[in-house]
Amino acid sequence: MRIVLFGTGNLATRLGLALQSKKAEIVQVYGRTESSCSHLAEMLGCRFTVSKENIAENADLFLLALTESAIPEVLSGLKIKNQMIVHTSGSISLNSIADWSNNCGVFYPLQTLSAQKEVDFSAIPVCIEANTPVNLQILHDLASSISPKVYHINSEQRRQLHLSAVFVCNFVNHLYAIGEKLLSEQQLDFDLLKPLIRETAEKALLFSPEEVQTGPAVRGNLSIQEMHLQMLEQHPQWQQIYKQISLNIASTQKTH
Amino acid sequence: MRIVLFGTGNLATRLGLALQSKKAEIVQVYGRTESSCSHLAEMLGCRFTVSKENIAENADLFLLALTESAIPEVLSGLKIKNQMIVHTSGSISLNSIADWSNNCGVFYPLQTLSAQKEVDFSAIPVCIEANTPVNLQILHDLASSISPKVYHINSEQRRQLHLSAVFVCNFVNHLYAIGEKLLSEQQLDFDLLKPLIRETAEKALLFSPEEVQTGPAVRGNLSIQEMHLQMLEQHPQWQQIYKQISLNIASTQKTH
Repeated sequence: MRIVLFGTGNLATRLGLALQSKKAEIVQVYGRTESSCSHLAEMLGCRFTVSKENIAENADLFLLALTESAIPEVLSGLKIKNQMIVHTSGSISLNSIADWSNNCGVFYPLQTLSAQKEVDFSAIPVCIEANTPVNLQILHDLASSISPKVYHINSEQRRQLHLSAVFVCNFVNHLYAIGEKLLSEQQLDFDLLKPLIRETAEKALLFSPEEVQTGPAVRGNLSIQEMHLQMLEQHPQWQQIYKQISLNIASTQKTH
Repeated sequence: MRIVLFGTGNLATRLGLALQSKKAEIVQVYGRTESSCSHLAEMLGCRFTVSKENIAENADLFLLALTESAIPEVLSGLKIKNQMIVHTSGSISLNSIADWSNNCGVFYPLQTLSAQKEVDFSAIPVCIEANTPVNLQILHDLASSISPKVYHINSEQRRQLHLSAVFVCNFVNHLYAIGEKLLSEQQLDFDLLKPLIRETAEKALLFSPEEVQTGPAVRGNLSIQEMHLQMLEQHPQWQQIYKQISLNIASTQKTH
């Protein structure tokens, strides 16, 4: 399996390295600038190009590790023979690339990737979809080479999965950030909260989160909630977040 | 150190068991009903009472592992000689119990406790405060016997710490619950999100959360955010939460 990797960001880097160490071969990196391409190509031990005309014609698969908005521009003018085009996005459908090739698919690793931290791909669920059973099998084999957790997920499911990920990852991280800032206002170290962050996550791995909900909102303790809202008076946006989530916790509980 | 433990809930149980296995001696459990008291007293191998008149007079410390609102009622009519009264709440001050005894303090373990899951107290920060240096030393020794992480935290700091804990624990857990429900609407298993939940928490243990923020809001990707809000149309409260947190992520980023 000869792959051209489109993109040079976090996802392209992590995915390229994980695939290259297995049975796939990244033959080329395509990116916007030489500086970004050359670094990744060197890590992968392959060629690179910034020109669509020079993209390897003998590749089997074009892997688009790009932001959604960059995909149409990259695909337009691309010479495609029988190469399979595969995107890696949680939020766009398989159909959005189906006009460009008879062979297309989606390869969506469900994880938060950042430059600062290595990830172990073997713990990451890879969600795949393809336009034919044969192509699905190709992607299944590719995904299985880097992770034991391969899921066949259709476009509507993947979109919802991505939305859920925004709540449990992006939004959760923002709540951590608010916690850190609240502590610094009282000259307290963020380390104080770390055991609690760890335990809260571990609990969610063992139990249904709704069943282990704790805190003033689920207890219906309004006097503490009012005190908290007063304490947040200098931070009207945090106040709004506090109100909305507390309201929703209380109303969730009422329906039981 | 002879302790009377007030309360029979999660905190009383976990704290009682942790202390009893160390140098402290829980001599008695006080609670509202015989059924709740007797079970905990049996676990601790001590006596119990539901009557304030029968509370052990030779105890050194009255440990109030109660909800804040129950404290005044329990303290009123209590015979106090020189016993130190200690509450375990994040959100009320040391002064709120200072009228009841010349010796008072706070012993606040910063963790989420639930009946379903054992906790390892040695990983839990214990935040202490007392009305005299001597009493602080007594609580320091007691706290050190169950955790290496003992912090001297004043009432104002503790109140802010508790508010932060609501964000990073109670509210985070609620976002996990929303994620689980969104998945179930598409017949997807919550297991899919667990590696992401774990990784997001682990990242916060290593980096400042604001610096590793990811997602559509921090990238300023409005078209995905609009799609997500449409997908949440059947859940107006989740829509509000999505809007408020995304707004705050975006405005935080702008100030950089």
